[in-house]
Amino acid sequence: MSTVLPLYQELFATLSGLIRAGTFPAGSRFPSVRHTSKEHRVSISTVIEAYRRLEDEGLIEARPRSGYYVAPPKIHADRFPTTTSRPSKPIRIERDTALTAIMEVSGDPAFVRFGSATPGDDIVPEAKLSSLTREVMRKHGAAALRYTPPQGRRELRSALSRRIFDLGLKAAPDEIVTTQGGTEATLLALRATTRPGDLIAVETPSYFGTLHLVRDLGLRVIEIPVDPRSGMVIGALAKALKKHRIAACLVQPHFHNPIGSLMPEENKKELAALAEQHDFTIIEDDVYGDLAHKGERPKSIAVHSERVIHCGSVSKTIAPGLRVGWSIPGAHLEEIRRLKGIQSPWNNTLSELVIAGFLDAGGYDRHLRRIRGLYAEQCAKTRDAVLRYFPDYTRVNQPAGGFVLWVEMPEGFDSEAFTSAALEKRISIAPGTIFSASGGLNHCFRLACGFAFDDRTLEAIATLGKLAPHFLKSP
Amino acid sequence: MSTVLPLYQELFATLSGLIRAGTFPAGSRFPSVRHTSKEHRVSISTVIEAYRRLEDEGLIEARPRSGYYVAPPKIHADRFPTTTSRPSKPIRIERDTALTAIMEVSGDPAFVRFGSATPGDDIVPEAKLSSLTREVMRKHGAAALRYTPPQGRRELRSALSRRIFDLGLKAAPDEIVTTQGGTEATLLALRATTRPGDLIAVETPSYFGTLHLVRDLGLRVIEIPVDPRSGMVIGALAKALKKHRIAACLVQPHFHNPIGSLMPEENKKELAALAEQHDFTIIEDDVYGDLAHKGERPKSIAVHSERVIHCGSVSKTIAPGLRVGWSIPGAHLEEIRRLKGIQSPWNNTLSELVIAGFLDAGGYDRHLRRIRGLYAEQCAKTRDAVLRYFPDYTRVNQPAGGFVLWVEMPEGFDSEAFTSAALEKRISIAPGTIFSASGGLNHCFRLACGFAFDDRTLEAIATLGKLAPHFLKSP
Repeated sequence: MSTVLPLYQELFATLSGLIRAGTFPAGSRFPSVRHTSKEHRVSISTVIEAYRRLEDEGLIEARPRSGYYVAPPKIHADRFPTTTSRPSKPIRIERDTALTAIMEVSGDPAFVRFGSATPGDDIVPEAKLSSLTREVMRKHGAAALRYTPPQGRRELRSALSRRIFDLGLKAAPDEIVTTQGGTEATLLALRATTRPGDLIAVETPSYFGTLHLVRDLGLRVIEIPVDPRSGMVIGALAKALKKHRIAACLVQPHFHNPIGSLMPEENKKELAALAEQHDFTIIEDDVYGDLAHKGERPKSIAVHSERVIHCGSVSKTIAPGLRVGWSIPGAHLEEIRRLKGIQSPWNNTLSELVIAGFLDAGGYDRHLRRIRGLYAEQCAKTRDAVLRYFPDYTRVNQPAGGFVLWVEMPEGFDSEAFTSAALEKRISIAPGTIFSASGGLNHCFRLACGFAFDDRTLEAIATLGKLAPHFLKSP
Repeated sequence: MSTVLPLYQELFATLSGLIRAGTFPAGSRFPSVRHTSKEHRVSISTVIEAYRRLEDEGLIEARPRSGYYVAPPKIHADRFPTTTSRPSKPIRIERDTALTAIMEVSGDPAFVRFGSATPGDDIVPEAKLSSLTREVMRKHGAAALRYTPPQGRRELRSALSRRIFDLGLKAAPDEIVTTQGGTEATLLALRATTRPGDLIAVETPSYFGTLHLVRDLGLRVIEIPVDPRSGMVIGALAKALKKHRIAACLVQPHFHNPIGSLMPEENKKELAALAEQHDFTIIEDDVYGDLAHKGERPKSIAVHSERVIHCGSVSKTIAPGLRVGWSIPGAHLEEIRRLKGIQSPWNNTLSELVIAGFLDAGGYDRHLRRIRGLYAEQCAKTRDAVLRYFPDYTRVNQPAGGFVLWVEMPEGFDSEAFTSAALEKRISIAPGTIFSASGGLNHCFRLACGFAFDDRTLEAIATLGKLAPHFLKSP
């Protein structure tokens, strides 16, 4: 009997490790006693003893006539983040938060990188891109290395023209302008629809890069709250429009960065109606739209309105380093083409041809299926780990697509100081303040889940969970 | 005797064709009678007859005790363009000239492309870039396809840091910001040193892309004339500075686009002294600086002043389609880094790594020697053809580097209409007006010589030469 105790303890440690690591995700069926006995070459009684401990710890649960299942994280209360802001007075964006450190380490594998929304090694279809590059060079020769025409390579615009059918969009190749990533597409849309001093609506929270552009253009903003499930709160926008006239409304309807929300069709229709009624342009940032964890690709708001400038990119789906994005400017085509011709008249020819090949060669859909699964898994595992290792008061979203988690701590939490402390431990995260025009949201932070979830990731979340309470000021 | 006549005529036609095609350039030794007799399997007397006709036509000349030489083009008067403008009142740039057509055909081999300054197939080191791309992908994997850090890949900044020693520049990798081509480097320099409404000095003529940026930023300009040999007329700038205060001065000291000039060291010193005295920034566009047809690489104006922002790119030396450029901002480093982080936070990672490899692997110097020779030859042949086939009143520069020719016709010539007519004949050229802030210079046009000079090129110049007189309004 003296050997039984260590054996079941060893088995318990192994199995609980696998659960925490996400090998057996919450809700999934846990291996039967018989299976584990065979697999780990231990006696049935050892397995039963180990499973009893797992049950005691709340890690698995027995269901009558069905076997064992991995238990959901202990806290059953609603752990979703709240809708964090209300419409405020028009403001200029004041804060200039240094992102340099986070971006600087985004390419450094010595760090566990939750800080930047970067696709990991398993996501980037490196081998395929490599062979496509060879093919493009062979086919086009020096022409693959010369200037693109001002609107972008026709091959890419044709491929995009076909793909956007999935979004309910119709645009001929000549109605598409390719850009250097999604950032340039948003910049062009803002420049085409506003002048310095104009008021625009932005979501709070929203992507920091867009807020930087808005501030740089000298625009004033009105902040519209975002529901972590359904996106921009249309009622709040409607209320703001009673008082203020806006030139444009920046919105991420699909798998919002940083809050993960997905805007229902009904809300899109309402937003489109408001745009019609109050004569403003909807700038739709759809960079994450292809990344539904399951189900259909959501449709563009342009289905409901002609007042939409659609902005896309392959940075989250194929490779950010190739800088390929696009604008479908609708009524603003001439102006966006003109502005593009001034500020950056040419794109990267090789990249455009490679991406055109990838979209056209039929591998993109298969690739998307694969990475949507990976992103879903990485998000779920990271979320589970946060719920396990962070204090009970921690809230975290459950995105239906994309790969960012929005973590909300109680008011008084200092995410900027927390970020600095995390960086010292070689873990990067993004503090909430950079996602807010007014510098609020310091009690929140974003965890991007682009990289594969492994032991190091788990350990990093555990480290962050232990660290977090120190950054909560007692009231 | 009946066969002698056709034979010498045939030989004459062949040889004069070779001269016009530039196979035997002006001033070079022409094959001896004996050599030609052997080479073409005709009798000595046939060759003598053919040579007499070549002499009659002014194509070759006999020099006593030395043999035959290819004659210089018939017109011996100074055929250099004149210094085309004087300092004027501060103005806003008014004209919005459509370049779209010219840029659109820059990738279309159905056109003879003098319109855009694009390196031809022989210039772009396609095979080397292709193998470097493979190497980079193998070495860096997915990391070659992820975001660059905000300032650019360190590999590229290190390589540049070493190369700029040739220019007399010293900058650590951290003092260099890489950009998406030279255009972005110029844009960042303008944004860092000016505010809308500020007055800056620009050269007339100067590169149209820069003029577009200047107008887009809402700057006013004062036009400074450019001498086709020695560049910006410093005396004219000094005179303007007595009346006006400027924020910055845009200058292309080396192998100026479009006028081909090279600023002597003495003039650089004077310009640097003026910058010191009148407290403005010199924005040095050095995109053509590596392309001296012979002799040393000219030094940066930064050798004489700390008030210089140096802008470079590989678009004319390696490949424009990779969009790799850089800024060496000196005192403006922080501001340019900040602006870059807002407007286009990331560059093309793969391109930066490939170019870093090319600059580092030791092949760049050999490559430069080769393409400097090619560009020189292409310019010389095109120039010779212009002097032969255009009317006598045509003036054309003789650049000491780079690959653009500036052609000046008498006042009253309409280069915009001429450009349209040329495009209909599938020949692209660039009308003078796009190189002028005030919309002048319609009597000039630019011929870029990036592509190999062949029969089609020669024929195109002959076509243009025949066409040109129709666009000269009689006074």
